[in-house]
Amino acid sequence: MDKGQIAARRPQRKGGLGGPEGTPNSKSERGIDSRVSDNDQKSRHRAILETAARVICEKGYEGASIQDIAEACALTKAGLYHHIRSKEHLLLEIMNYGMDVFEEQVMNQVLPIPDPLERLKVCMEKNILLVTHGWSKEVTIILHEHATLTGEARAQIDARKKRYVRFLENSFAEAVRDGQIRPVNPTVAAFAFLGMVLWIYKWFRPDGKIDAPTLVREMQDILFGSLPPPPAARKPARPAGKRRRG
Amino acid sequence: MDKGQIAARRPQRKGGLGGPEGTPNSKSERGIDSRVSDNDQKSRHRAILETAARVICEKGYEGASIQDIAEACALTKAGLYHHIRSKEHLLLEIMNYGMDVFEEQVMNQVLPIPDPLERLKVCMEKNILLVTHGWSKEVTIILHEHATLTGEARAQIDARKKRYVRFLENSFAEAVRDGQIRPVNPTVAAFAFLGMVLWIYKWFRPDGKIDAPTLVREMQDILFGSLPPPPAARKPARPAGKRRRG
Repeated sequence: MDKGQIAARRPQRKGGLGGPEGTPNSKSERGIDSRVSDNDQKSRHRAILETAARVICEKGYEGASIQDIAEACALTKAGLYHHIRSKEHLLLEIMNYGMDVFEEQVMNQVLPIPDPLERLKVCMEKNILLVTHGWSKEVTIILHEHATLTGEARAQIDARKKRYVRFLENSFAEAVRDGQIRPVNPTVAAFAFLGMVLWIYKWFRPDGKIDAPTLVREMQDILFGSLPPPPAARKPARPAGKRRRG
Repeated sequence: MDKGQIAARRPQRKGGLGGPEGTPNSKSERGIDSRVSDNDQKSRHRAILETAARVICEKGYEGASIQDIAEACALTKAGLYHHIRSKEHLLLEIMNYGMDVFEEQVMNQVLPIPDPLERLKVCMEKNILLVTHGWSKEVTIILHEHATLTGEARAQIDARKKRYVRFLENSFAEAVRDGQIRPVNPTVAAFAFLGMVLWIYKWFRPDGKIDAPTLVREMQDILFGSLPPPPAARKPARPAGKRRRG
């Protein structure tokens, strides 16, 4: 999926960025110029989400008013409401945006890798690169720190996060079954992976002593350096056709 | 340090819990009864901090009023101000309380362990037990999620956290120098440790499938199972007298 299409996957206000509510514009009817304009609008929408995330992190969700967010976006309040439904829906949109980018750049990239250990290693690499470079740090903070969402909106985000946990658990379990790694509790291994990777936004500085590729290499080495069984216990690699997926 | 003394280490309001501002009460002058009463007051103060932490997590720092916190503590607003200075100072107190308990139950317990690898393993155990049992989850959230503190108060908490990071880095570096573990970047290893341990509050459920002792064993195994060098590369253990400390 093209990164520019992310914002368009969610329902938008009538008269807003995406045409009639819930109905994607038909690009083929409107030609190249509208496509460029669509991409511009989607970039604009992402920029609004990232700016709103910064304001919410700075002032807290309760402390940040729609007026504050509008000002930071260089919009009037009415202008901002052209792009968003409500403050709570904006928060949900920021979280869904974070999950969209994550799924597109991390999970969907590694799902097709047949070897579970290789899948986990590449997954760690891609997730670290996303946390260190992929979007504003504030989107990560909103996605992973104490949730202000309630009810159905919260359940929706929780379900998306749970899908990643299950994917990691299943990959670890598969690697154990195949004798690629020594026996570990797949749930603990999944959350050890997640903790190592997601804690990074709290301490990593792009201009610091450790660059992102070094971080990837060291983290992979710390987690997966531990897990291979002694050489004698290793089973031969499966043929590529015999894939199981978590 | 006795756990009951934690709250008394910080300056308190005149006429509040701890006698004249900044001056600890002299127990020897007042005998057993005042000691019991001191402990009661300190427990009461801790209970206020944990209750306030819950309200702040529920409503957000901006959204939680002093009135809300007072009500949750079954106090009048004036009654609450007898125990606290201001909302921002209350937040600082919650964080200092979290750091006090952490230092007392984790860092100070393991500092005297001469063997760096053993020190790190016991440290992981004690930190996991603290995160899973030691206090209300909300204290951990306030301590580690997006900080609302500013200026000097923030610098104070950051310095206390940094001390722990340095301790872990130095212990990993020492274990590498001694040939106990294979070469790792001590900073990455320290934050891998921290991420694994501190992410636990986000997913661990006391009534879940994984109990705390299992979690400790599995996490130690995942992190430290990786790090020993091949047996041939190991250096003999140092005599206990030759301690270096990070």
